[in-house]
Amino acid sequence: MSATAEQPAFDLADPAAYSFFQRENVRFSDTDMVGHVNNVAHVALVEAGRLAFAFDAAERAGVETGLVTFVRLEIDFRDDLYYPAAVRIGARVLRVGNSSFTVGIGVFDGDRCVSTSVNVLVHLGDDRRPAPLPDAMRSALERSRLGQP
Amino acid sequence: MSATAEQPAFDLADPAAYSFFQRENVRFSDTDMVGHVNNVAHVALVEAGRLAFAFDAAERAGVETGLVTFVRLEIDFRDDLYYPAAVRIGARVLRVGNSSFTVGIGVFDGDRCVSTSVNVLVHLGDDRRPAPLPDAMRSALERSRLGQP
Amino acid sequence: MSATAEQPAFDLADPAAYSFFQRENVRFSDTDMVGHVNNVAHVALVEAGRLAFAFDAAERAGVETGLVTFVRLEIDFRDDLYYPAAVRIGARVLRVGNSSFTVGIGVFDGDRCVSTSVNVLVHLGDDRRPAPLPDAMRSALERSRLGQP
Amino acid sequence: MSATAEQPAFDLADPAAYSFFQRENVRFSDTDMVGHVNNVAHVALVEAGRLAFAFDAAERAGVETGLVTFVRLEIDFRDDLYYPAAVRIGARVLRVGNSSFTVGIGVFDGDRCVSTSVNVLVHLGDDRRPAPLPDAMRSALERSRLGQP
Repeated sequence: MSATAEQPAFDLADPAAYSFFQRENVRFSDTDMVGHVNNVAHVALVEAGRLAFAFDAAERAGVETGLVTFVRLEIDFRDDLYYPAAVRIGARVLRVGNSSFTVGIGVFDGDRCVSTSVNVLVHLGDDRRPAPLPDAMRSALERSRLGQP
Repeated sequence: MSATAEQPAFDLADPAAYSFFQRENVRFSDTDMVGHVNNVAHVALVEAGRLAFAFDAAERAGVETGLVTFVRLEIDFRDDLYYPAAVRIGARVLRVGNSSFTVGIGVFDGDRCVSTSVNVLVHLGDDRRPAPLPDAMRSALERSRLGQP
Repeated sequence: MSATAEQPAFDLADPAAYSFFQRENVRFSDTDMVGHVNNVAHVALVEAGRLAFAFDAAERAGVETGLVTFVRLEIDFRDDLYYPAAVRIGARVLRVGNSSFTVGIGVFDGDRCVSTSVNVLVHLGDDRRPAPLPDAMRSALERSRLGQP
Repeated sequence: MSATAEQPAFDLADPAAYSFFQRENVRFSDTDMVGHVNNVAHVALVEAGRLAFAFDAAERAGVETGLVTFVRLEIDFRDDLYYPAAVRIGARVLRVGNSSFTVGIGVFDGDRCVSTSVNVLVHLGDDRRPAPLPDAMRSALERSRLGQP
């Protein structure tokens, strides 16, 4: 059932796979005693990109983001990231399910990929239980998945 | 008007000055590339201690904490702190004003003081504007200031 | 090749599966505007547990931890966590490979499981490339995997 | 001896007082359960601005930043900050001492000032004890203090 069991539809580590990017600065407080950006801070960057992508997709589609909960993260730490840096966080839908969808994210320092991740989100109804994706939201997610603007 | 302009009522760097302590672990993600605990993480430890103190004081006094806002922090970074460590965060009221009060906090690694800080808080009324401290809250704060249990 | 492709050797969400626990306080700064502990802070708690476990295992085995790098995290956010809370972070080896090993972690608020995660680490040689696990380290990891003290 | 005892040389809350600005995005993980940006995250933004300013000043002056330690922070939380936001962090030297100097920082959401702070730094010699500011560094700091580019 995990998204890793399937072949991803695009290469998460290739910046050319993404049309949406969020730019974020690495902060000094993101580093740790190893000298690089801490793994936890990598996850903060992924979250920043994931939410910017969600708000952008909702706005472009003219839909509400609705109540969406984040249920699973798979992240591969591919290379060290150092302070200072301004990274680009690419995001694109990997899979659209019935009530859930999956966003692939690559974080890039220049063209160097420092992490890739698979982010699983679930749409909730008013009773806060998983509910089918509304049509407009599903269409917007599908367009992202197909790499359409 | 700043609290630093007055002589503090006790030595913030002396663990014997405090009767309330909150214990917190330093986390690996609190460190930075200098090798020590990052200054921002020091402030997170101070916040953890300040709030634990406020909830404890309110509970002991049988009062609600009410709506309190944190308006000013003065912190002296006195010594390096390293991972791993379990610190004690001492907190005690320094000053009780009309609608505001000031909490002195010392963070200790063993008996070694790594930071001292002066934390200014303001009590807000239902209109979210500064409002006089309720009597029960004032009494609880005064007891802390005098070093009474 | 992912650890999720295999049946885990124990139930990550069952506190009885773990003999090692690290205790950590949730800090106020770990919360987010949704009102619960932020997903990024969940990952900081996992990191705190993972490293405490590694240092403990190394010390018990009388071995150096050596140079180990964290390469992959899979985390399932199972339930909301709220401030204040003192959590127990259980850690136990899931799999021992040639140069890599996998640690399963469950975070518990009381007996309620709030996250489970699979943490993949790689042992590096002096040239900072993956290198076979030293025998003493392998033995210590195997003991943890089998649930032995 | 505290910088607050003196009248600041410029209005820390006025964006027009600064010629150097660092831009930073507020991240979702910067928020807390009150709904706004957490006080600790405010301090992370101040640190991001302080270091960007120091590196910029050193580069413009053609000097090394040398070994500088951050010893004291005074911060006034002036207004709530919300996610999402892109803030401008203005920084300018307030005072140049013998071995220490003070940087004033204002964080702005648009033209709205959300915090002002006084940051005290000390220059260290090779023995890691306070040492007089090198001439080139002193000149660069003086230029910032006078509002010169």
